[in-house]
Amino acid sequence: MENQQRTKILLNSSEDTFHRAAGIILQIGQIFAIFPVSGILNKNSNKLRFRWISIGVLYYFLFFCFQILNFLLSLRRLVKAGMSFGAFATVFFYFVTLSGGLIIFQMAKKWHRIVKRIEQTEKIFLHPPYRQIGRTLRWKVQSVTLFLLTGAVLEHVMYFVAKFLNAKIQIERCNLQIPIYEHYLKTERRHIFAVIPYKTSLAIFLEWANISSTICWSYFDIFFTLFTSSMAYRFRQITDRMKRARFKTMPDSFWIELRSNFTNLTSLLNYLDRELSNLIILICGSNLYFICQQLFNSFGMTSDSEQLNTIYFWFSLLFVICRTLTTLFFAASVNEAAKEPYQILKTLPYTSWTVEIQRFSDQLISEVIGFSGKRFFYITRTLILALIGTIVTYELVLLDHIAEAPEVIQRSCHIAYIETVLPTNLTI
Amino acid sequence: MENQQRTKILLNSSEDTFHRAAGIILQIGQIFAIFPVSGILNKNSNKLRFRWISIGVLYYFLFFCFQILNFLLSLRRLVKAGMSFGAFATVFFYFVTLSGGLIIFQMAKKWHRIVKRIEQTEKIFLHPPYRQIGRTLRWKVQSVTLFLLTGAVLEHVMYFVAKFLNAKIQIERCNLQIPIYEHYLKTERRHIFAVIPYKTSLAIFLEWANISSTICWSYFDIFFTLFTSSMAYRFRQITDRMKRARFKTMPDSFWIELRSNFTNLTSLLNYLDRELSNLIILICGSNLYFICQQLFNSFGMTSDSEQLNTIYFWFSLLFVICRTLTTLFFAASVNEAAKEPYQILKTLPYTSWTVEIQRFSDQLISEVIGFSGKRFFYITRTLILALIGTIVTYELVLLDHIAEAPEVIQRSCHIAYIETVLPTNLTI
Amino acid sequence: MENQQRTKILLNSSEDTFHRAAGIILQIGQIFAIFPVSGILNKNSNKLRFRWISIGVLYYFLFFCFQILNFLLSLRRLVKAGMSFGAFATVFFYFVTLSGGLIIFQMAKKWHRIVKRIEQTEKIFLHPPYRQIGRTLRWKVQSVTLFLLTGAVLEHVMYFVAKFLNAKIQIERCNLQIPIYEHYLKTERRHIFAVIPYKTSLAIFLEWANISSTICWSYFDIFFTLFTSSMAYRFRQITDRMKRARFKTMPDSFWIELRSNFTNLTSLLNYLDRELSNLIILICGSNLYFICQQLFNSFGMTSDSEQLNTIYFWFSLLFVICRTLTTLFFAASVNEAAKEPYQILKTLPYTSWTVEIQRFSDQLISEVIGFSGKRFFYITRTLILALIGTIVTYELVLLDHIAEAPEVIQRSCHIAYIETVLPTNLTI
Amino acid sequence: MENQQRTKILLNSSEDTFHRAAGIILQIGQIFAIFPVSGILNKNSNKLRFRWISIGVLYYFLFFCFQILNFLLSLRRLVKAGMSFGAFATVFFYFVTLSGGLIIFQMAKKWHRIVKRIEQTEKIFLHPPYRQIGRTLRWKVQSVTLFLLTGAVLEHVMYFVAKFLNAKIQIERCNLQIPIYEHYLKTERRHIFAVIPYKTSLAIFLEWANISSTICWSYFDIFFTLFTSSMAYRFRQITDRMKRARFKTMPDSFWIELRSNFTNLTSLLNYLDRELSNLIILICGSNLYFICQQLFNSFGMTSDSEQLNTIYFWFSLLFVICRTLTTLFFAASVNEAAKEPYQILKTLPYTSWTVEIQRFSDQLISEVIGFSGKRFFYITRTLILALIGTIVTYELVLLDHIAEAPEVIQRSCHIAYIETVLPTNLTI
Repeated sequence: MENQQRTKILLNSSEDTFHRAAGIILQIGQIFAIFPVSGILNKNSNKLRFRWISIGVLYYFLFFCFQILNFLLSLRRLVKAGMSFGAFATVFFYFVTLSGGLIIFQMAKKWHRIVKRIEQTEKIFLHPPYRQIGRTLRWKVQSVTLFLLTGAVLEHVMYFVAKFLNAKIQIERCNLQIPIYEHYLKTERRHIFAVIPYKTSLAIFLEWANISSTICWSYFDIFFTLFTSSMAYRFRQITDRMKRARFKTMPDSFWIELRSNFTNLTSLLNYLDRELSNLIILICGSNLYFICQQLFNSFGMTSDSEQLNTIYFWFSLLFVICRTLTTLFFAASVNEAAKEPYQILKTLPYTSWTVEIQRFSDQLISEVIGFSGKRFFYITRTLILALIGTIVTYELVLLDHIAEAPEVIQRSCHIAYIETVLPTNLTI
Repeated sequence: MENQQRTKILLNSSEDTFHRAAGIILQIGQIFAIFPVSGILNKNSNKLRFRWISIGVLYYFLFFCFQILNFLLSLRRLVKAGMSFGAFATVFFYFVTLSGGLIIFQMAKKWHRIVKRIEQTEKIFLHPPYRQIGRTLRWKVQSVTLFLLTGAVLEHVMYFVAKFLNAKIQIERCNLQIPIYEHYLKTERRHIFAVIPYKTSLAIFLEWANISSTICWSYFDIFFTLFTSSMAYRFRQITDRMKRARFKTMPDSFWIELRSNFTNLTSLLNYLDRELSNLIILICGSNLYFICQQLFNSFGMTSDSEQLNTIYFWFSLLFVICRTLTTLFFAASVNEAAKEPYQILKTLPYTSWTVEIQRFSDQLISEVIGFSGKRFFYITRTLILALIGTIVTYELVLLDHIAEAPEVIQRSCHIAYIETVLPTNLTI
Repeated sequence: MENQQRTKILLNSSEDTFHRAAGIILQIGQIFAIFPVSGILNKNSNKLRFRWISIGVLYYFLFFCFQILNFLLSLRRLVKAGMSFGAFATVFFYFVTLSGGLIIFQMAKKWHRIVKRIEQTEKIFLHPPYRQIGRTLRWKVQSVTLFLLTGAVLEHVMYFVAKFLNAKIQIERCNLQIPIYEHYLKTERRHIFAVIPYKTSLAIFLEWANISSTICWSYFDIFFTLFTSSMAYRFRQITDRMKRARFKTMPDSFWIELRSNFTNLTSLLNYLDRELSNLIILICGSNLYFICQQLFNSFGMTSDSEQLNTIYFWFSLLFVICRTLTTLFFAASVNEAAKEPYQILKTLPYTSWTVEIQRFSDQLISEVIGFSGKRFFYITRTLILALIGTIVTYELVLLDHIAEAPEVIQRSCHIAYIETVLPTNLTI
Repeated sequence: MENQQRTKILLNSSEDTFHRAAGIILQIGQIFAIFPVSGILNKNSNKLRFRWISIGVLYYFLFFCFQILNFLLSLRRLVKAGMSFGAFATVFFYFVTLSGGLIIFQMAKKWHRIVKRIEQTEKIFLHPPYRQIGRTLRWKVQSVTLFLLTGAVLEHVMYFVAKFLNAKIQIERCNLQIPIYEHYLKTERRHIFAVIPYKTSLAIFLEWANISSTICWSYFDIFFTLFTSSMAYRFRQITDRMKRARFKTMPDSFWIELRSNFTNLTSLLNYLDRELSNLIILICGSNLYFICQQLFNSFGMTSDSEQLNTIYFWFSLLFVICRTLTTLFFAASVNEAAKEPYQILKTLPYTSWTVEIQRFSDQLISEVIGFSGKRFFYITRTLILALIGTIVTYELVLLDHIAEAPEVIQRSCHIAYIETVLPTNLTI
């Protein structure tokens, strides 16, 4: 800890705000048509603007329509082909990205108000007696979120490599006279090019829209982690201040101020919890579902499957598990950090005990302080264990239903999109 | 919120009582032979009367006998034909409507006493310093209950349409020389017309009795929601009063009065909880069972089944889920509303803290305040999540036992009720 | 409540002790070789004596040996014939009666000390200001325990009737020249008469020993209910006293005394909890197991089985469920009764609030007061719900393993005990 | 209790420290290449030294490499032969011993600091007014840990006996001209001697390394129990002191000191909890897994299997269950002992109640005091029940997947290691 504190502080601590920490991540989000707000990289949060008539919003709606289309197409397939785990997963995926995108869009609309509300509470933590703990907030928030973002991009790159190589192998085996990228794009979007004729520009657009969807899915976790890591940092600043005052006799006003700051922070937490609750439920639900789904699929994996796909499959599963655990851990760390002050209150001597400290103490032990999913559940360490237990139980129950190894499409020269050019509804 | 408060208040707030809010719903219940009390639409609750010798009670007992008959007949079928999911569900359904009807009848008998007890506590919330929050209690209670009631009626109408059309199709295919309604009625009640000869007037009576049973089942949830939505409203009034006083220095007497009002409200809650506990257990148990049952059946649905029946099936399942969630949410909202005052107590400054506020604070955090099923469980948001988790687990476990698609009766011209006219016990 | 209090009080309340209430039940236990203590019907608890050299102890040890023998024989069968649900249930049954019998015997040895400890706390509740609530403790304790005991005897009588009639039917069908009772006894104990020659006197003794075992099993629940119903009564007396003082201004000394009495009662409860904890774990475990086992067997029942056996089977299952629920409800009622005083403390006015009442209040909400299984679990209403949930889950999981209908032995004329007279180890 | 206190106290109580109690156990650990610290048997904890260049560390790293090798080989087999319960169990076993060994090695490196931290708090409990409770800490800690260690050694000896006798039987049946021990060693390590040529000295080394691994696995539980049994003892000393002061009027300073001591002890507990948390998760996780695994295997056991192996199997399973329960019980006893003081505070009279006692009381009821797995779960009695419940549920769910009886290798004369001398990858 000490040597961390000795690291050169590059940022004036009075500028170490949530707004500045979140900026770069939100900016990257815009590349993938998420969060169309301008001024997020400006140092002054007053410059934040959301305009209905802007490139960002247009970009967002274009991709939004594409996602609706995808959702409806996959829903149609589910109804036609009958219930199956795989088909349902696709519908659920588009439902998640669609509704998650909408929730974040709603937040973008009132982003300047949210940032104002955060800064109102945050400003007391930017100056002494509060001080920076270890690295800056900015460093901490950005490192974890960029780590998750890199993982998400890497996962998708691996997906491309696997699919491209598959396409290449198939072309060679079947002696197709077609560029690899075209074969790849056609195979990928065959349910669309079954209806409309293939055009490379359109195909690339669709590809990009699809990438955007996939990154979007990871982006929900990242977006949520922005808030959790900031809040945990602020709670730790309170504990830090108390630790320094522990062995001194402090005036009453000290404890009155401290409790007031703590209460303000929990008010901010409650405010953010209300704003984020829908997103939290979506994150927890979808991650729980996809991990169960993929683990279940893993039982059906045989060593016969194409090695490339197998490697991608395991990497992807590992990534989803890591991302989920990281997100949950940071969310639970808010709860952990908010419980910490109680440990210091316990060690206070008899002489400095007052009614106000008693109130503070009661407050700390009587409530679960932390992010919650609309108060259906609170994200604590215990919850993480419960989720893991649930996943294990479900997998054991599902062991009976292990599917056969998925048929290896690229072994045969039956090219899906060639078939589906025929104007028939049955093959979709 | 503000613009809601600005809506023209049509009702004098001193008349915004539970009795007036519940009136119309209870009156509608009487159409379906539930709740035979007179004077429920009268403004004055003193006019409430329960008389053993009255049309309402007679009507109730007539339908009660019919339900007992149905219950016994379905029980007989279960014992004869052996245990099966479907047969058990029918027995359970009649058991639920029967016992639920009895519980509500018991409450009808002492309804004037219950209303008196509610009004005794309620009167303090009808005048300043308490005030109306957003819409009137009456508007809130009636909108949610009428919404549920409309859903229940709609669901049953869909049932008729589906069955009627089925009957029509069958008549056409099999060239039967019989009016549609008669064919429909005979098919529906074939277990009765197997024993006694068919008569249209009797058949229509039986049909109405059956409608009454089905609506009755939904009515339990509606009846319970009357209480939960009212109680939640009252708790919110307390929070509202506290919010306005938050930043003022209030005399001791203010907090003494407030705590007293809150304690009175929890006493009323405990009273109602005791009166309703049997109904609550019945509601939770039966809804949990029927959702499990129907979800389980949904796995066995194939796209081959008659489209009409499929649509009805999914609509019905959706309705039961919505109704259950609405009921549980309103019940849980009492718990949510009763926890709210604690958040305001936390923010009170050092100077206004007294022993009485301490007591209030202790009281708020030490108990689960809310409706319970005889204290076996408390209806909170956490419980709702637990119920959903239970349903998911049970469905996964039952995945092994998926039944084959139910045989499509109307495909064949084997008319059930014609066969069963023969005086034989085996075919029932 | 009022008219109950008006019932003629036949017993001087100062004599309404646990010792007097338990007497008759413990005396009946002695018939079945349980609880060999003398003086349990004497009004004076000083006359209680346990002597190693006495008829009771001798009687107990004789039956104890028989149970050990049974346990070993059934264990041997389990090892030889391999694991099966049915065989394991028999081993477990003898294990339960054996160890439960030992636990109660241990308690018999120190019974006079236990009664002394109870009376020490009890004496303050025998005189005003405490008073009798409704019926006497004696009436309450005896009515519930005698009800359970009657059920247990009835269940065993039904067993006899069913087996006797089976024996009669078999004799008639197979034209056996043997008295019914002899055929019955031989069939029942065929694993013993395979080793030693049949003698009617011995067979009757063995029969009686077996009856004793079966009653013994129900006796554990009854024995435990003696304590739970008494303790719940005492806690209710405290609430009763508080209720009367609620609207008066009471001196400090009143609350000091009341809290002291309450603390004494919880100390007694903790003492009894320590003494009974092994029995509690045994009761909960064995009841949970046997209900699961029998419910599981019920799935395999077909209407083809002998009607007599079917009726006995369902009656037996129903009895075990009722007995278990009664036992658990009375145990949970201690917890319910001990929480009640808090509701009254809440309504106390500002003026009478003191530090001592604060302590009382803290005490009531900070601990789970009630019987526990070595603090692994506390018997509360929530626990009962959890147990029911566990049973339902286990049954659903086990649905896959439904056994075929048990082979109907008496249909064939292959008489088991005739075969097993041959000195062979394999047929046992 | 009294006669225990009268037992001759052989140890000066001021020397009854954790360091002295743990010494012998840690020393034995060094035999199996665990815990390379010098001076652990020295009375003075200042002599504790960890040196990177020492026999102990060298010994540790040699075996560490061997374990890594084993881990990788078993992982390779898992990937090659495909997922199976048995293969996964082997990988998991090596993973557990490997990572557990590393965790303990980390603790060895800072052992002198840990012991110093313990002694800093411990010293107040070595002198009056605190006193020895029953036997010395040293006796208690050593008896339980030596008991567990003996069990572990015995279990492994039984393993040898079973395998040796198997080897002997096979040699006789197949007329092999080879010493028993060589045949045994070759069979055991056939996956290694498939790659490199057999050498008796190497084989014996490998055997010893394997023994070390197995003992190491049990050693984690033993190591953890060292801490839990010591901490529980210290908490009991506080209760003991309070018990003696219960009926006296004690000055304020008494309670201030007592609360301070208690808080110090919980601080120490939190410190140890942080240090041990990784080990605790490993212990709980691995024990839960192996019990589930072995119980599952037990269903597949048939009486046809070699009797010797069967006996070993059941003994081994029983040992793992006993060891786990012992470990968990001692960990839970810390929680039990830390809750005890509350019972005494409750009985304090009105006159001696102060703000400091109020704080003490609040502290006792507001937190779960005990060892935790990184606060994901706290080891309490309730947790033990939850674990047992989880195991039962998992076994019931897995009942469907009962494997066939394992093939009895030694019946055939197909000698595994002879085959595998051929340089082929497929047979490993």
